[in-house]
Amino acid sequence: MINKKQVMESLDMLLVPGVMRSIVKMNLVRNIDISDGKIDITLASTALSPGTQEWLKNKINNIAGGFTGISEVNINVEDAPVKDLNQIGNVVAVMSGKGGVGKSLVASLAAVALTRDGYDVGILDADITGPSIPKMFGIGDRPSGSESGLLPVTSKSGIEIISINLLLPSEDDAVIWRGPLIGSAITQFWEEVLWGKLDYLIVDLPPGTADAPLTVMQQLPVSGIIIVFTPQDLTAMVVRKAVKMVQQMGKPILGVIENMSYLYVPEINKKIELFGKSQAKDMAQAAGAPLLGQLPIDPALAKLCDEGNIERYDSDTYNDFAHNLTEAFSLWQKNSRANEKRR
Amino acid sequence: MINKKQVMESLDMLLVPGVMRSIVKMNLVRNIDISDGKIDITLASTALSPGTQEWLKNKINNIAGGFTGISEVNINVEDAPVKDLNQIGNVVAVMSGKGGVGKSLVASLAAVALTRDGYDVGILDADITGPSIPKMFGIGDRPSGSESGLLPVTSKSGIEIISINLLLPSEDDAVIWRGPLIGSAITQFWEEVLWGKLDYLIVDLPPGTADAPLTVMQQLPVSGIIIVFTPQDLTAMVVRKAVKMVQQMGKPILGVIENMSYLYVPEINKKIELFGKSQAKDMAQAAGAPLLGQLPIDPALAKLCDEGNIERYDSDTYNDFAHNLTEAFSLWQKNSRANEKRR
Repeated sequence: MINKKQVMESLDMLLVPGVMRSIVKMNLVRNIDISDGKIDITLASTALSPGTQEWLKNKINNIAGGFTGISEVNINVEDAPVKDLNQIGNVVAVMSGKGGVGKSLVASLAAVALTRDGYDVGILDADITGPSIPKMFGIGDRPSGSESGLLPVTSKSGIEIISINLLLPSEDDAVIWRGPLIGSAITQFWEEVLWGKLDYLIVDLPPGTADAPLTVMQQLPVSGIIIVFTPQDLTAMVVRKAVKMVQQMGKPILGVIENMSYLYVPEINKKIELFGKSQAKDMAQAAGAPLLGQLPIDPALAKLCDEGNIERYDSDTYNDFAHNLTEAFSLWQKNSRANEKRR
Repeated sequence: MINKKQVMESLDMLLVPGVMRSIVKMNLVRNIDISDGKIDITLASTALSPGTQEWLKNKINNIAGGFTGISEVNINVEDAPVKDLNQIGNVVAVMSGKGGVGKSLVASLAAVALTRDGYDVGILDADITGPSIPKMFGIGDRPSGSESGLLPVTSKSGIEIISINLLLPSEDDAVIWRGPLIGSAITQFWEEVLWGKLDYLIVDLPPGTADAPLTVMQQLPVSGIIIVFTPQDLTAMVVRKAVKMVQQMGKPILGVIENMSYLYVPEINKKIELFGKSQAKDMAQAAGAPLLGQLPIDPALAKLCDEGNIERYDSDTYNDFAHNLTEAFSLWQKNSRANEKRR
């Protein structure tokens, strides 16, 4: 006789059209009951159009009815609130305080690293007035959804993405909003998007220490922050403001990353420190967190970002960073679990 | 017999202690009457401490009493509102939408260029959460003032500067404010700072199209905008949002500047386009404004900024930019005057 786990595994192959993500990962399968050759399945219809619901019911019927010994399949559809379906292991915000240091780049590279490591990852682009994430991943599809929720757009390598730029008529359109509206857009990206089951949700913050980071740190269950900086003194000063904000809000800093550390010029086999001496040690100390990496300026990476192919990036320095990041995350989770046990 | 103009010229040598700016430039001399060997001078006490007022009265007494044929000097002190004393020729905002493209750098270099050209220039740092201006100019003095107003801090070459960083206990301190507070800080920098007589007030905007640029464009008499961008496609997309905002707010764009255009490596006598091909033509076209310059990445400039010595910068590309900027400004003013006459 077939068991629940086997049914779940089969349903995990069923991708929601448009999203191309499995109904199990989206946490839409609410219940499975098997008894006397009968399977009862409860499916959440949240964020699904009526057409998609019908399509899924047919598919589930075929899959479940195909098991040996099953003579009856009942599919019960219910509208569950997004918050009941979202199971997000860790919300990690990428912050800097300073603009143009590569927050979106680091957020994206971190998501790619965690995805390559086998985790389910999403990116919430909290930069409402200067969103960069969709372009880096080359996605432009409008998110689908219904009155009960919005679905993220899945990238080529399976990262779930929501950004205001996916909702604008044109990617050039300006969002001329004052702070309260920006805050409410971010909370909607949290409360009304069906993220489903994710190991990590990376939040890409805009520059500054105003509405967006305040809303994210106050309204979202942020487990930790990654701080991005570049070598310039001037940048370091502004980034220290962000570090102070994080500390004042009582959030842990998981690590710091120096971006644009240097440029390697192969013709002369030389590293040029374009923006001055590395600030890595000082920043790690100020943040009380490990240095996760020093990324050089890499014209090849800039090109991949412009082409929407950041997921293809590969380099030694990136692999070091990816390794340090996933190591730091698993160490941090081990410590969190140990702390919880101790309580 | 001495005339008003001569008295004014002598008073223009009198610098307010702490600010090191003349009482005439600060527009504190409200009236001069000369008759029968008597000079009556009305001095505004706005933003001056009682001690400074006394010191100035003594000095004015000495200067005016020293003219041949003058036997009596009367100094009348009155508290005039800041708005009556501020005579600002042009408010020019430097904007980008994108962070880290060098808005503060361009704002500062523009101020330096106009100052070298003989204009009186101020900088209003409207980046409340990531203020960079004071560090670039190497100023750290707390602005002086009284209940009736705040005085800007004067840079080495005579540029008047106000920034939130000059008012914080430490330059690293974070300003964790939501939008409305940010807007009100900016309007205070406009309404409660005694700028006096300036030909140009350069406003350095933070990234984004939210509270700060909205407040500046709605509350300040902005005559025009300078747009800064870098070559990356990703940046250009976000900068086009800023251009759209400016156009929607009905403000003229005076010119566009490409920063970080390339890096010149002397060892191989080669320009490396680190962030991709120049976007200069497209951006100038999108903005409907002239290209004022293409600034390379210059490690020497980064160093000067970190040392607080941006006023010492000199390079061929900078001189080209400075020339184009002052040319564009005088052309634009000529056109404005012509348009006014035509009306």
